[in-house]
Amino acid sequence: MKAQAGPEDISRVCRRIEALGFKAHIIPGEQRTAIGITGNSGPVEAAEFDGLPNVAEAIRVSKPYKLVSRETKRENTIVSVNGVRVGGDRMVLCGGPCSVESRAQILESARAVRAAGAELLRGGAYKPRTSPYSFQGIGEEGLRYLAEAREETGLGVVTEAIDVETFDLVETYADCVQIGARNMQNFSLLRRAGRSRKPILLKRGISSTLEEFLMAAEYILAEGNYNVILCERGVRTFADHTRNTLDLSVVPAVQSLSHLPIIVDPSHGTGKRDKVLPMALAAIAAGASGLIVEVHPAPERALSDGYQSLDPEQFTELAQECRAISELLASRRRVPAGV
Amino acid sequence: MKAQAGPEDISRVCRRIEALGFKAHIIPGEQRTAIGITGNSGPVEAAEFDGLPNVAEAIRVSKPYKLVSRETKRENTIVSVNGVRVGGDRMVLCGGPCSVESRAQILESARAVRAAGAELLRGGAYKPRTSPYSFQGIGEEGLRYLAEAREETGLGVVTEAIDVETFDLVETYADCVQIGARNMQNFSLLRRAGRSRKPILLKRGISSTLEEFLMAAEYILAEGNYNVILCERGVRTFADHTRNTLDLSVVPAVQSLSHLPIIVDPSHGTGKRDKVLPMALAAIAAGASGLIVEVHPAPERALSDGYQSLDPEQFTELAQECRAISELLASRRRVPAGV
Amino acid sequence: MKAQAGPEDISRVCRRIEALGFKAHIIPGEQRTAIGITGNSGPVEAAEFDGLPNVAEAIRVSKPYKLVSRETKRENTIVSVNGVRVGGDRMVLCGGPCSVESRAQILESARAVRAAGAELLRGGAYKPRTSPYSFQGIGEEGLRYLAEAREETGLGVVTEAIDVETFDLVETYADCVQIGARNMQNFSLLRRAGRSRKPILLKRGISSTLEEFLMAAEYILAEGNYNVILCERGVRTFADHTRNTLDLSVVPAVQSLSHLPIIVDPSHGTGKRDKVLPMALAAIAAGASGLIVEVHPAPERALSDGYQSLDPEQFTELAQECRAISELLASRRRVPAGV
Amino acid sequence: MKAQAGPEDISRVCRRIEALGFKAHIIPGEQRTAIGITGNSGPVEAAEFDGLPNVAEAIRVSKPYKLVSRETKRENTIVSVNGVRVGGDRMVLCGGPCSVESRAQILESARAVRAAGAELLRGGAYKPRTSPYSFQGIGEEGLRYLAEAREETGLGVVTEAIDVETFDLVETYADCVQIGARNMQNFSLLRRAGRSRKPILLKRGISSTLEEFLMAAEYILAEGNYNVILCERGVRTFADHTRNTLDLSVVPAVQSLSHLPIIVDPSHGTGKRDKVLPMALAAIAAGASGLIVEVHPAPERALSDGYQSLDPEQFTELAQECRAISELLASRRRVPAGV
Repeated sequence: MKAQAGPEDISRVCRRIEALGFKAHIIPGEQRTAIGITGNSGPVEAAEFDGLPNVAEAIRVSKPYKLVSRETKRENTIVSVNGVRVGGDRMVLCGGPCSVESRAQILESARAVRAAGAELLRGGAYKPRTSPYSFQGIGEEGLRYLAEAREETGLGVVTEAIDVETFDLVETYADCVQIGARNMQNFSLLRRAGRSRKPILLKRGISSTLEEFLMAAEYILAEGNYNVILCERGVRTFADHTRNTLDLSVVPAVQSLSHLPIIVDPSHGTGKRDKVLPMALAAIAAGASGLIVEVHPAPERALSDGYQSLDPEQFTELAQECRAISELLASRRRVPAGV
Repeated sequence: MKAQAGPEDISRVCRRIEALGFKAHIIPGEQRTAIGITGNSGPVEAAEFDGLPNVAEAIRVSKPYKLVSRETKRENTIVSVNGVRVGGDRMVLCGGPCSVESRAQILESARAVRAAGAELLRGGAYKPRTSPYSFQGIGEEGLRYLAEAREETGLGVVTEAIDVETFDLVETYADCVQIGARNMQNFSLLRRAGRSRKPILLKRGISSTLEEFLMAAEYILAEGNYNVILCERGVRTFADHTRNTLDLSVVPAVQSLSHLPIIVDPSHGTGKRDKVLPMALAAIAAGASGLIVEVHPAPERALSDGYQSLDPEQFTELAQECRAISELLASRRRVPAGV
Repeated sequence: MKAQAGPEDISRVCRRIEALGFKAHIIPGEQRTAIGITGNSGPVEAAEFDGLPNVAEAIRVSKPYKLVSRETKRENTIVSVNGVRVGGDRMVLCGGPCSVESRAQILESARAVRAAGAELLRGGAYKPRTSPYSFQGIGEEGLRYLAEAREETGLGVVTEAIDVETFDLVETYADCVQIGARNMQNFSLLRRAGRSRKPILLKRGISSTLEEFLMAAEYILAEGNYNVILCERGVRTFADHTRNTLDLSVVPAVQSLSHLPIIVDPSHGTGKRDKVLPMALAAIAAGASGLIVEVHPAPERALSDGYQSLDPEQFTELAQECRAISELLASRRRVPAGV
Repeated sequence: MKAQAGPEDISRVCRRIEALGFKAHIIPGEQRTAIGITGNSGPVEAAEFDGLPNVAEAIRVSKPYKLVSRETKRENTIVSVNGVRVGGDRMVLCGGPCSVESRAQILESARAVRAAGAELLRGGAYKPRTSPYSFQGIGEEGLRYLAEAREETGLGVVTEAIDVETFDLVETYADCVQIGARNMQNFSLLRRAGRSRKPILLKRGISSTLEEFLMAAEYILAEGNYNVILCERGVRTFADHTRNTLDLSVVPAVQSLSHLPIIVDPSHGTGKRDKVLPMALAAIAAGASGLIVEVHPAPERALSDGYQSLDPEQFTELAQECRAISELLASRRRVPAGV
């Protein structure tokens, strides 16, 4: 749609789409609104929309993913998480423990990451674990502590939903619901996320191609939730000096193909505390819109992932250094592609 | 337990385990029953069970997976699917289309694979697809057709459950419920499978290590379902001459670590029709307990995976050649490890 | 060329090729001779050869590899190593230690593998080692011991050349010169091998695609040596239950694209003694023309690769079981593609 | 050795090492000299050196690589290439075409990269190519043009040696001899490089682990050449959005284990022109000591790798942006580990 298109123009287009038997997706942007079409089995005639007022142009999307494609929407999507804008020209920091372990631990973590300049708090109440005998999270109790931490610190809460059964509960407490790497192709969970009114943080699967990653996001958008943040967190390769191989090249690759914001998780992406800072700097330099970092008040006592968690002091250094690079890039107008 | 242990001996051990606050798992075998213990946070004293009648020995399992380990149960597990024994000294063939497309298609497929000597019928009514816009299966209608095919041909039905929501329905119709590669670490689905009374076919994830694979099976056994068949279906590597790289070495590797049977899927494992036969032969020679193969009455018209499906004639050749190798190995006493 | 083409017909075609400024490659076959053309920068007119006597047809090779392509030569190439035919309908066994360690060790190995039915003896006199401080082989002394073992047992000798400098020496003693996986893209060494009059055993690189593998062979053929045996020996993946992942699907893939024979090395391909037998059986079942297996009279005392070497008794079992499968396949006419 | 150790102190230690039958390696540093010992088959008694003047301490190196280990030499090695210091606190830029194609092309390239701020010129006169029929470089003629470009511009010349045969010639013209990724485990070539008096740029193999990479460098140092620059250039994975997956985490990993400098090649590391700039920025942010970038006066006409080459204008932007990040990091004292 053209920038001056009003609500009436938009709904006129949607009615036309629906009249053709298809589904219309209104994807709002900062300046212009895009309207995606799904449900068509073959190409739709552009001429159908030619005469309608304030239609800028009708574009046929060449990729298998439609709604996530930059062909559908040229300008970057900014996702608002509890008022924090992800995908704009300022990098966003999300920090916190792997798991919510106790009220004291999460409150202490929240204060620490906030003091360091983070705007979002992470912490898992439900944990997907390789072993059925490992600590599986403290569930709803953890969600309540996260909400309490938000209340005290103002930080937005990012926490994972591991299945459809507990999604409702997670959604109630979270400001942004995370879909983890192992669930990137859990299509029922993706569809449920697509029906949520909360933003979704979608992590790349451990051996996911870029196309599969964007198709997973497409599942969410296709159900009507356009607020998706992508996250690179390392892929599985033969290399053994890190737990995973952080594939930063996916950041500019996503930015050229999609309007969705992408952030980076250097904690899972390396699995080693001393590699988190250099890779966080690299991620910001590569153009990532933010970072999600594991921070624990006492990493050596963490119930999970302690070896890759930073202590508050290390996280403060990370925040300062990354902020400096982000500001340098902004001052030189090196902002994510497409803006 | 010793071979002569009776029900009373077994329940005496279980009561002792439960009295200690742990969970007892009775894993029946052809000759001896094993009893696994989970729920303990540290080692359990072997002496607790020393004096009990007909206890053969108390073994501390050294691996992170407990119930699937051959340390827990030395003899091979034989899983019965609609009366067909998987894991014994005869190879088992499962064939059928990728997706159930119509009544005619599945009945025709069933007759063809049965004629070729298959004992189990595969076919997906719910399909996990990379794209939200691809054919997603015909759902319960497909399950009914599968049941009808069973009625007519006597073949056992293997079909996939893709989420907890539809598991009940799939379980009602299936003789064996498949958990697909993308869901190998969908822990909620694994737990649901563990509460099923139907056998489970668990496919290895596309980038799963052997330990992760066995841990996924452990999730199912830990909930009380000991009838799990493992399945190698190819892993993701740099190699591009096949769609996936079929890792046959996992067959003897599983057999030395676990008592569970393992079969091979050469269709997904290669993704190319002309590689299915040689890799099927190789799988049987490597010691696999069976094969699951995509067969379609008219591969060129299949709604999914047609390029890797065999036609009935090709499947008949595969069945004959594999049977010949299987019989040769059996005659030379080359049976799966541990028997 | 047609089957009845005589030397004069062949040299007439070669003269025509050379007159056009290109290089002619006479690749003899069991029944028909193929003549490859290289040195042309664009397509060559088929009409140039149309009128010549006993030319069957002129084919434009569509692949980047030309002389190794089955388009150039339809029938399988049989490579003769000291009179042993590799690539025919009988599987060929090559066994012996990783390294030649002493006269006694190699003679004992040779007798053992011969007794088990091997026709070729392997053993490295020059060893490429990851560490400069590891045992690097005993050099020419080792070559002399290999020659002595040949004299005593009649086995053909397969041994590795690791650089151009020592190629002359290796070539003098060997019946077949091995190019190892690390040197698969050592193009100078490949060119030297192409100027050798001995057959070459070319191992697939640890992360080589099929096309790169065939292109490496093309380097050898392009210099005029058409006696190349390919060898799959495992590729590097994330999987950690074996040292490498043996990619048996490359066997039928090579056979459909190339006329060159392919054998399998299950010792390096698995890196674990107890996986060698099942993967050897699988390789033969997949259609490999033979096996190269590490055998040591006393694996626990081997200077290199002891953990993956078989003792003579294990090798004898392997030979018998593989032979049985090979004979079964031959009796059912399941021979390598293209014959 | 202590900082005040003089030549006499150093040779005293070396004489002691040689008297024990071992080889001494004098590895000079900016402030202190380290002396490595190789040739010992077991541990050497630290007490042997305790009484000697100006010996700071005797350390047993725990890693399989000895001379490259930071245990042997704590401070960063600075490698001087034609007077340009690689490994210090300023990033170093090397630019130029994939192949030297003509005198005009290389002179134009040299002027362009110099104008952009590069201090080193790259360009291959001998090219390792997957196909025997691809352009293989113009050989010595190319080396002469590179020398002429150095004369005119003052840039140091980095060019590849692909075999022992041509190493002498390359060494004569080059200021730094590159060993390419395919030759990382060409041990004869590594040994020849170890006997060179020119610095060596060693690229990581396409599927090399960190340990293998450092062991390859060890081959060079073990022969007496301590001037080795390591280079990450991407590894082979399943990911297909870039030609290789640039593994930037190896930069801090190398820096913590070794004193050798490491630079990054974002051109081969991504294989796509539009990914070169973001990954170059990321590499510098991750702490790399420099970059080697493919630049061509007219990428669309390049004889090799044109699709990943920058034009001079793009390279100028890359140089400016990377310089800005490098200076920011230096001003915040974020310099490579260990200084």
